[in-house]
Amino acid sequence: MDSNQNGAESLVRTLVTNDVQVCFTNPGTSEMHFVAALDRVEGMRCVLGLFEGVVTGAADGYYRMAEKPASTLLHLGPGLGNGLANLHNAKKAGSGIVNIVGEHATYHVKHDAPLTADIEGVARPMSHWVKTSPSSKTVAVDGAQAIAVAREAPGKIATLILPADTAWGPGGDIVWAPATPARKKVDEKTIKAAAMALRGSGDRILLLGGVGVRTKALEWAGRIAAKTGCKIAAEYNNARLERGAGRVQTTRIPYAVDAAVTMFRDTQQLVLAGAKSPVSFFAYPEKPSVQIPATCAVTKLVGVEEDILAALEALAHELGATHLAPIGISEHDKPAIPTGPLTQEGIAAVLGALLPEQAIVVDESVSTGRGFARLTTGAAPHDWLNLMGGSIGFALPTSIGAAIGAPGRKVVTLEGDGSAMYTIQSLWTMARESLDVTILVFANRSYQILRGEFANVGGGKPGKRATDMLTLDRPDPDWLSIAKGFGVEAGRATDLDSLVSEFKRGLASSGPYLIEVVL
Amino acid sequence: MDSNQNGAESLVRTLVTNDVQVCFTNPGTSEMHFVAALDRVEGMRCVLGLFEGVVTGAADGYYRMAEKPASTLLHLGPGLGNGLANLHNAKKAGSGIVNIVGEHATYHVKHDAPLTADIEGVARPMSHWVKTSPSSKTVAVDGAQAIAVAREAPGKIATLILPADTAWGPGGDIVWAPATPARKKVDEKTIKAAAMALRGSGDRILLLGGVGVRTKALEWAGRIAAKTGCKIAAEYNNARLERGAGRVQTTRIPYAVDAAVTMFRDTQQLVLAGAKSPVSFFAYPEKPSVQIPATCAVTKLVGVEEDILAALEALAHELGATHLAPIGISEHDKPAIPTGPLTQEGIAAVLGALLPEQAIVVDESVSTGRGFARLTTGAAPHDWLNLMGGSIGFALPTSIGAAIGAPGRKVVTLEGDGSAMYTIQSLWTMARESLDVTILVFANRSYQILRGEFANVGGGKPGKRATDMLTLDRPDPDWLSIAKGFGVEAGRATDLDSLVSEFKRGLASSGPYLIEVVL
Repeated sequence: MDSNQNGAESLVRTLVTNDVQVCFTNPGTSEMHFVAALDRVEGMRCVLGLFEGVVTGAADGYYRMAEKPASTLLHLGPGLGNGLANLHNAKKAGSGIVNIVGEHATYHVKHDAPLTADIEGVARPMSHWVKTSPSSKTVAVDGAQAIAVAREAPGKIATLILPADTAWGPGGDIVWAPATPARKKVDEKTIKAAAMALRGSGDRILLLGGVGVRTKALEWAGRIAAKTGCKIAAEYNNARLERGAGRVQTTRIPYAVDAAVTMFRDTQQLVLAGAKSPVSFFAYPEKPSVQIPATCAVTKLVGVEEDILAALEALAHELGATHLAPIGISEHDKPAIPTGPLTQEGIAAVLGALLPEQAIVVDESVSTGRGFARLTTGAAPHDWLNLMGGSIGFALPTSIGAAIGAPGRKVVTLEGDGSAMYTIQSLWTMARESLDVTILVFANRSYQILRGEFANVGGGKPGKRATDMLTLDRPDPDWLSIAKGFGVEAGRATDLDSLVSEFKRGLASSGPYLIEVVL
Repeated sequence: MDSNQNGAESLVRTLVTNDVQVCFTNPGTSEMHFVAALDRVEGMRCVLGLFEGVVTGAADGYYRMAEKPASTLLHLGPGLGNGLANLHNAKKAGSGIVNIVGEHATYHVKHDAPLTADIEGVARPMSHWVKTSPSSKTVAVDGAQAIAVAREAPGKIATLILPADTAWGPGGDIVWAPATPARKKVDEKTIKAAAMALRGSGDRILLLGGVGVRTKALEWAGRIAAKTGCKIAAEYNNARLERGAGRVQTTRIPYAVDAAVTMFRDTQQLVLAGAKSPVSFFAYPEKPSVQIPATCAVTKLVGVEEDILAALEALAHELGATHLAPIGISEHDKPAIPTGPLTQEGIAAVLGALLPEQAIVVDESVSTGRGFARLTTGAAPHDWLNLMGGSIGFALPTSIGAAIGAPGRKVVTLEGDGSAMYTIQSLWTMARESLDVTILVFANRSYQILRGEFANVGGGKPGKRATDMLTLDRPDPDWLSIAKGFGVEAGRATDLDSLVSEFKRGLASSGPYLIEVVL
């Protein structure tokens, strides 16, 4: 132990000792001692983002793939504010993050200097745990506690606020994070109740969520389905869905309320394994918030924070299904490479045909990607990461973290043009870190989803002023220039043939490549 | 009154009726009825931002120039989160904003859909007033209340949360905003105390803030200085400083702590007129938070929310100074147009020589602009807008609002490259709205200020990993491509001669023009 280290060093060493090996940063003056400590401590990879939404989104993607928390480093209340939207998404995804936010020195706060703000107040809505560290001597203890919280299933947001003098004052020893409790096993009674629900006749759905959509869990679900005849479904959004050839296929609940209601129309039994009972993404006049019929019985097998894999295995045992082959396994069935004009079906076919083995698909394709599932089911096995909190601007940052959290795997980012704009600075970090990310920007020059939503809420056909608020035209963003500006190579696809050649070019590159898909 | 209008329409009509004529928007599904209402209500200018920090920063700039609030329209908790940093800056600037944030329908919140968050919790740290409107019948009443709060001196942040069903349900009547109380006059005793403080001998400083740095107030200060021999100073940052030829000049408190302490070293009397007693922007080891000596007497003449102009006039009366000519008026003294390599002094000379009459300078030049004051003092009269809350990413959005709030005046944006990155999407809005903004991006490819701060906090010379966190190189942003990507014309200045020609080109344009100043 180095008794001469300052608080910042004791914190950085505590992070590294506890296997927090990546820090996504956008620092300011109050964080300079933390930055200085990085030079003196080995084992921390620091990744700079030019905007805090990049930083927090990257930490989300990192957790989803590495299955352990990264830390962030943010500058006071406003810097944390800039990171809130992607912290919200990470919180809804169950991604653990050790969020470190600088603060004025403890004695300086009372002077109400320009950057003074209620940092704890900003942090609280998007954090599971918030603490302002009171002393340089104990900042490592607080850091260890934050790590323990971030590791708690299904992954939590721990925000540690670090006053400048707790960074520059004399530090204590390196601290081991308290042990994280194992995911709780569900009891036998719960297993038996779920078995009973699925044994019945009629339309029964096993709805999977959380880590229930990973390969092994899906296989148990496939055996349960083989035995009981239930259907297997996944939530509309999933933090990390393992799919493609060789994996048990799930039906994703549709976004559109009417389609979701139709899916559950005849369902008599719904068994939840890491999933929530389905509700509409938004409320609409005359449409229900709850998507299952009042007559549908709901049985909770296991919560998202509990041991989902063990619960599914125990359920299979209870049902006598362990010896069965899982049903619903996708076969290798790559679509033919298509040609002709750009269509949603055609784009899906390009993905299905060309997605490389173990690709990580980060999907914020919003309206364009609604129909991508069918033609990618038989693609090479891959992971599919959805936007969990609904706040757009997630895919580019999350792709950064996914690439760093799973080196050697290709990241394919499906991105709406409107969504890309929120955290466009991500491109620079991809370029600096030479990340293996191929980005498809679906350029329809509008918030296309909102044009649908405008009608859905009963707005009718938008007039001129409303249309202006729903479109990104005048001027059309020029994605090739934007990419070039941030140091990322780019190409343009105007039909399926050019999409195929551009996508192949991206896949062949080991660094970032952006394709403007002109819709 | 239209009794068939829905809640959203009643709110939009209430805004327009109360002279809230601009809405900066980044809407989502829950705000579609508000957007739909815009088609049916005349008199509201809607301006789309592709990121919420653009929206809130624009509202700040609008208030500073138009002296009345604009409204924003933001999408739920995360959308508000994205706008928080520039709301923080606006709050510190005393800019009034009617912040409208959509929320799920009242009955939908309990279902915890993906976008559900504690919106009031997110709003509170950066708002003076927060209310979730409970009913479509009373949303106009709440809107009127929000307007009244936003108008309160010196301008406040009112956040109205608008559940979707309060927008689509039946609306009430249009509501007049309650009258805003006039700025409070300070009492005679306070005037006499300030007069006594300034009448003494020794080093006396009248420190101006808020609207105390506008032309008329400065003239009263100039008369007071002529009578008493006191010095006139302004805070380090000012929401809108009127300066240039014909205006009474002020000395701005320096950013650097040592320089600020030196400025006040011999001060015996400090009189505050809309200003706060000076404190350091950040704390540093071994440096003081308070910048005046313990022996300096501080007398508060008038608070930032009170009638500063009347207080200065009354003080001049009390001192018998009303008949005197103000001292310290800047003469027309434009520097010669310089030539040679780019230096801070040379850039200042270009600005001093070429700033057009009534230009609005939005200054986020951070390290590059520290020395711009001297050579621009004799420039054509202009307004100078500073970053008030210290959260970078303010100048591009604020320039949007300033241009819309003061049509016919040229906006000149002085922007660091690091700062520009946070809200770079602003360029698109400038292009769409054809705003008359000339932007100088000082491209030093680093957070230059942090390189100084690293040493200031005792970090010594940054090593490789720390340096990487302080630099924007590898890759260097290509500002011409970035501007092109967002539809903004641009040029590059590599020496003072090309800066002059590029700046002239920008000034001759009536739309946005970006100059990459390669440092």
